[in-house]
Amino acid sequence: MVKRTRFDGESCPVARSVDAVGDWWSLLIVRDAFDGSRRFGDFQRSLGVAKNILSSRLRELVDSGILEHAGHDYVLTAKGEALFPVIVALRQWGEAYAFASGEDHSLLLDRRDHQPLRPLEVRAADGRPITPADTEVRKL
Amino acid sequence: MVKRTRFDGESCPVARSVDAVGDWWSLLIVRDAFDGSRRFGDFQRSLGVAKNILSSRLRELVDSGILEHAGHDYVLTAKGEALFPVIVALRQWGEAYAFASGEDHSLLLDRRDHQPLRPLEVRAADGRPITPADTEVRKL
Repeated sequence: MVKRTRFDGESCPVARSVDAVGDWWSLLIVRDAFDGSRRFGDFQRSLGVAKNILSSRLRELVDSGILEHAGHDYVLTAKGEALFPVIVALRQWGEAYAFASGEDHSLLLDRRDHQPLRPLEVRAADGRPITPADTEVRKL
Repeated sequence: MVKRTRFDGESCPVARSVDAVGDWWSLLIVRDAFDGSRRFGDFQRSLGVAKNILSSRLRELVDSGILEHAGHDYVLTAKGEALFPVIVALRQWGEAYAFASGEDHSLLLDRRDHQPLRPLEVRAADGRPITPADTEVRKL
């Protein structure tokens, strides 16, 4: 059993988030939940992961309040649904940078018009577009 | 040495992204690069990680084109800078869900007015706000 590195004492919300989510499997389980997976078998077919790993990750996601049981189903809580921008941000970066030219990939589409979503934009409180250089981190 | 799970054959951009980024250490290195870390020692002081782990993660981030060498510094490439929405999304989720009430955390602020950024909004191509239920995934 690999001991997971813990970031739960960190004062940085990025570190806390990665700690709360778990590992990459956990994040892909959340992705699958957004895409309609609800049963253990749904996640297993999609991920092709060993049952014991899937079991432990599902249990951890329930323990951390990201998934909850609804009968035999696993469904996202409000806290889990709030990970949507994280999943969309990873997807859009992957679409831009992680495929060879001409290589196909799955698409996340707006149900209404079947168009891809708008790229996420980081904005200031007043709506100005913000680049990394426009920001500063105030540490504790 | 723990063998890393590979997702580089996946047709889902989320899986490709997590594969290209590496592990949580890699993502926290990217966070530190956004926050101004440039030297090996900067990352080490911030992360408190073993030198051999930090070395291998920095090398992988250079190999995957997310960081590049500039003399003795490690700096984000355009591909690395494009991870900004991922980091901001994780940060904002962490701020909302990963701290106890009243517990302090670091803040990402707009340099101009020292205000926190606006929460990321997932939007359709035409600008409508989009929830997970408004989307569908078209698989290959």
